[in-house]
Amino acid sequence: MCDNSSAASTSPGDCSALGSDMHRLMQRLFPICRSITGNGVRETLNILAKYFPLKVCEVPSGTPVFDWHVPREWNIREAYIENEKGQRIIDFRKCNLHVVGYSAAVNAWMSLGDLQDHLYSLEDQPDAIPYVTSYYKERWGFCMCHNERQKLPEGRYHVVIDSDLKDGHLTYGECIIPGATEKEVFLSTYVCHPSMANNELSGPVVLTYIAKWLMSQPRRHTYRLIFIPETIGSITYLSLNLDALKTQVVVGFNLSCIGDDRAYGFVASPYGNTLADRIAETVLQHTCERHIVHPFLDRGSDERQYCSPGVDLPLVTLCRSKYGTYPEYHTSLDDLDLVTPTGLLGGYNYVKQCIEAAEANAIYRITCCGEPQLGKRGLYPSISTKTSGASVASMMDLITYADGTNDLIAISKLVGRPVWELNEIALRLKDAGLLKEVEKGSLTRASTLQ
Amino acid sequence: MCDNSSAASTSPGDCSALGSDMHRLMQRLFPICRSITGNGVRETLNILAKYFPLKVCEVPSGTPVFDWHVPREWNIREAYIENEKGQRIIDFRKCNLHVVGYSAAVNAWMSLGDLQDHLYSLEDQPDAIPYVTSYYKERWGFCMCHNERQKLPEGRYHVVIDSDLKDGHLTYGECIIPGATEKEVFLSTYVCHPSMANNELSGPVVLTYIAKWLMSQPRRHTYRLIFIPETIGSITYLSLNLDALKTQVVVGFNLSCIGDDRAYGFVASPYGNTLADRIAETVLQHTCERHIVHPFLDRGSDERQYCSPGVDLPLVTLCRSKYGTYPEYHTSLDDLDLVTPTGLLGGYNYVKQCIEAAEANAIYRITCCGEPQLGKRGLYPSISTKTSGASVASMMDLITYADGTNDLIAISKLVGRPVWELNEIALRLKDAGLLKEVEKGSLTRASTLQ
Amino acid sequence: MCDNSSAASTSPGDCSALGSDMHRLMQRLFPICRSITGNGVRETLNILAKYFPLKVCEVPSGTPVFDWHVPREWNIREAYIENEKGQRIIDFRKCNLHVVGYSAAVNAWMSLGDLQDHLYSLEDQPDAIPYVTSYYKERWGFCMCHNERQKLPEGRYHVVIDSDLKDGHLTYGECIIPGATEKEVFLSTYVCHPSMANNELSGPVVLTYIAKWLMSQPRRHTYRLIFIPETIGSITYLSLNLDALKTQVVVGFNLSCIGDDRAYGFVASPYGNTLADRIAETVLQHTCERHIVHPFLDRGSDERQYCSPGVDLPLVTLCRSKYGTYPEYHTSLDDLDLVTPTGLLGGYNYVKQCIEAAEANAIYRITCCGEPQLGKRGLYPSISTKTSGASVASMMDLITYADGTNDLIAISKLVGRPVWELNEIALRLKDAGLLKEVEKGSLTRASTLQ
Repeated sequence: MCDNSSAASTSPGDCSALGSDMHRLMQRLFPICRSITGNGVRETLNILAKYFPLKVCEVPSGTPVFDWHVPREWNIREAYIENEKGQRIIDFRKCNLHVVGYSAAVNAWMSLGDLQDHLYSLEDQPDAIPYVTSYYKERWGFCMCHNERQKLPEGRYHVVIDSDLKDGHLTYGECIIPGATEKEVFLSTYVCHPSMANNELSGPVVLTYIAKWLMSQPRRHTYRLIFIPETIGSITYLSLNLDALKTQVVVGFNLSCIGDDRAYGFVASPYGNTLADRIAETVLQHTCERHIVHPFLDRGSDERQYCSPGVDLPLVTLCRSKYGTYPEYHTSLDDLDLVTPTGLLGGYNYVKQCIEAAEANAIYRITCCGEPQLGKRGLYPSISTKTSGASVASMMDLITYADGTNDLIAISKLVGRPVWELNEIALRLKDAGLLKEVEKGSLTRASTLQ
Repeated sequence: MCDNSSAASTSPGDCSALGSDMHRLMQRLFPICRSITGNGVRETLNILAKYFPLKVCEVPSGTPVFDWHVPREWNIREAYIENEKGQRIIDFRKCNLHVVGYSAAVNAWMSLGDLQDHLYSLEDQPDAIPYVTSYYKERWGFCMCHNERQKLPEGRYHVVIDSDLKDGHLTYGECIIPGATEKEVFLSTYVCHPSMANNELSGPVVLTYIAKWLMSQPRRHTYRLIFIPETIGSITYLSLNLDALKTQVVVGFNLSCIGDDRAYGFVASPYGNTLADRIAETVLQHTCERHIVHPFLDRGSDERQYCSPGVDLPLVTLCRSKYGTYPEYHTSLDDLDLVTPTGLLGGYNYVKQCIEAAEANAIYRITCCGEPQLGKRGLYPSISTKTSGASVASMMDLITYADGTNDLIAISKLVGRPVWELNEIALRLKDAGLLKEVEKGSLTRASTLQ
Repeated sequence: MCDNSSAASTSPGDCSALGSDMHRLMQRLFPICRSITGNGVRETLNILAKYFPLKVCEVPSGTPVFDWHVPREWNIREAYIENEKGQRIIDFRKCNLHVVGYSAAVNAWMSLGDLQDHLYSLEDQPDAIPYVTSYYKERWGFCMCHNERQKLPEGRYHVVIDSDLKDGHLTYGECIIPGATEKEVFLSTYVCHPSMANNELSGPVVLTYIAKWLMSQPRRHTYRLIFIPETIGSITYLSLNLDALKTQVVVGFNLSCIGDDRAYGFVASPYGNTLADRIAETVLQHTCERHIVHPFLDRGSDERQYCSPGVDLPLVTLCRSKYGTYPEYHTSLDDLDLVTPTGLLGGYNYVKQCIEAAEANAIYRITCCGEPQLGKRGLYPSISTKTSGASVASMMDLITYADGTNDLIAISKLVGRPVWELNEIALRLKDAGLLKEVEKGSLTRASTLQ
């Protein structure tokens, strides 16, 4: 069984409170109508900024970003469909998924037949409102449950969308938390989805609490956290920060769909061989018997941009039930029941353990030839019996492979013990003068250690 | 099921006709008594030369070729065994397999007992005439069905072989079809077997029609086709052309046993890692669910020479039912029923697809950072729903791995799509300016791409 | 079935005698009370020195050796426990396992209750005397069968250990047998265990007879054999000889637990990729269908020192039933019945075959292009039939991979034939001028050939 929801480093009482705190933040953010631009993103970031020092940044529409341009800003005030009796049969205020994202303004009467061209529903999930967007082609449309769509009587309908799409800004949040070195751990999540919980309020909520925790910790690495709109946001951010990211980031994690109770997994990098892959793999291996390594071919979140040729950040997407793999995905069923306090807590601990592994990871070298005499340092049993060796097996195994060519994660794989156990031993041996770190800031992007 | 016999690029009508045409050519060539030298080879090459510009080359007996010498030329006019009544119980004219290849001349009466020392038959295939040769030690002998041998009555027999073995030439055919670059695809098959169909008239017949097809196509590579006697022919050809081959050949295919209906496979190179291995593997993987990769340890055709140390051509032998694996092999049962029009057509399409893969293979690099905006080029659906991504998955996957380190075959392996599908997409993206080829003539012999 | 107990190179009569000879030597050595220092080691080495020129070396107590110091020398003359009636209920003379190794002197009366703190027994092996030592902390103690311990009546006991622990020497034996080159095969075993047979008199006894055999053989390599106390002995020897070992040793074998009849195996090096691993693997693969490759994580003998970071000798431990894997291990049940003449003979042949593989191993290169014409050298059948190729398959396979990049062991793996068969063929081909050795003394420590 996975034990991420009750990690050893947090007491059970704290845990339970932490999960509830995160779920409450999610409840507060849930109703806001976010999109890839607009006031919903701003409102969301302003709420998060109350939890940790989040800098809100604005990039003007039209700014060229790699192969793209920052789009015009979309805002929506109201949207509904009325029947001839003036009854609102769909109202954006009840659920912001009812409107196709980036819908153009409309105010018109039309027949049911004409209206049908603008309606979206899911035959195989007739009680779910689908999530549909049309960012790059001007359209308008409404989403609704298929069951209700089926019941719409013939007649004329009054369709109103009070939105505008005009030059403005793309908005994102950034928080840099300095550490002992300039080498960075990069953490990204997105804030462009309207009222859906796992995809995607779980990522921003978990990352908010990770930021709070990071600020309370000693940090070997500098941490760069960003809260962005998906795709165009990551492209924009990369376009503005590529050199810094390529120079400084030693490992990155994108957070998405990380708040439900069902699974743990990650989306591997294109070749599955970065430090991020190795960290996610080793953490899950020792905490979660049944976890899923999604190949990069099943990607879909901002790992698409971060791992694209020329960008090549050493990054994976950490997730619980991955986008596209659970039935509620991209519908109104992805709600505050699907994401739970324990689900969020599990996701939080998973991210935390990955960060702890990144902090712990180092290349050590034993300082003597042959096995050190642990006994004279009180590290070895003084009497040799049939079983006395077992108690120090992990220590001896660590020493064996601490030959200056393996980082702790590699040693974890070689000896089958979790990196946090090895880290504790390594620090003890370092204190005893038996291990030294081979290289200050031993994590390097070029690492190909397996 | 394997679909090589009805490749998409040829219409069904053409296919059927092509298979029949090949089978007719085979019927014409079948009765000729070929050996590693002599007029049978000349006659065969002269017939093939009517189909495409085949240059017939002669190398004198005694010419040193690597560790060997070109042997004396063997020709045979007549051979039979008569009983005392003057009845021919074996006649070379009925089947040229009756005479051991390279048999010395003989004209003598002898007892059945003495004759037995010169008879070859197969106890476990009593109705088959075996194929036996003795190129490098002077012998004479007759081959016959074991059942008939058993019935031979005691008595005296008149044994006649009217052959001669004297200085002459080793004869082979060569055809060089120039392409856009000097980099060569090397194609080899052999013309030294008497009346057997799969091993080996299938190879020369399929390669003849491949030559015709190649001449009708735009060609990125130059094509070097040779029709030679096995072993001594390839050794001779290598000895005369080693430098050119080592400099120019980027991929090579030897064709043998490629006309029956039973299997598809190839004989891997010694380490199984050349471009030829990768091409044969990817073609079969996407056309033939159940195919056989024969390890080099099971070699037996001219891959023995082409892949020998110091020669090291990046070559595999393409085959349907490999020599040594089918019961009719090296007997009179390997006949015009075993090889069929559909069998030949399947072999032809297999070779053609390997060549097309070699032509398509290139190393591409995406021209922008991050994912390109496909939508503005009409390459991406403008509305995002739960399923819209699937339609462009192959394109996105290609872009992901088009990072300048993978050729198309490597990408095919990474993303699980056939190289011809990726090639079409790559050409579209190249037209759109989104991909560029990393290196003109990107196929290099040093390629170790997997 | 494993056939190491009847290796082809020794006649059955010899075999049987050899096994018995080894067992007789073991009987002679068995009663001596060995420890990591002291007269028991000297007495043992002096006996072995009658079999081959073994140099006995002494290193003073207190000598710093890497992270350790040579300990004081321990000698024991007498030890017993008497009851109030003057009956010896435990007597060191009956079995030297009764005394905890390195026990301090004691001569005292005490109650059973107080005595219990100094008794060691095994509840789950109630009829076995356990083997216990306390080298690095001053203690005294007795070991006995649990069943007898249970029966001890209340009362007072007279406890006597007449031992001393004072500055003296650590003693070991060394034998260097020169060969054609200075490149060394390193062979190590240990002489610090009291009366136990498999662990560890089997190693010294087998290595003694290996020394005798080596001296009778032509030798390509120099052989360095050492007989040392475990752990502190190997650390001492390494400390004194590290440069020579690192420069000269091309392959090493530690022998331990190599005289019983049950299993064959070896303890792999830390990464399982040295020449020693490759040799042990190939020998067992072709002699012993069911053998065990113990990962380095299950180490426990002097491979711990020889393979430690900074030492990094290319060494494995050859064993039959490995220490820690058989129930009699480290008890009085590991006796002269557990180790048998056939068991010792099997161990001897296993070591011998590993040495023969090391001697045979070389990198060859074929001297011609294309396949050589074996026929003209009488190495190929002159008539080609369906089956004639099989008889020369190993020869042709060897030629194929004798491309100057593979040593014989690598070729053995590639072609599936044992290295001794390939060696015979290689020598024939070398005589025929068809193979040449690529490099004089082709075994190099840097070899990463797989």
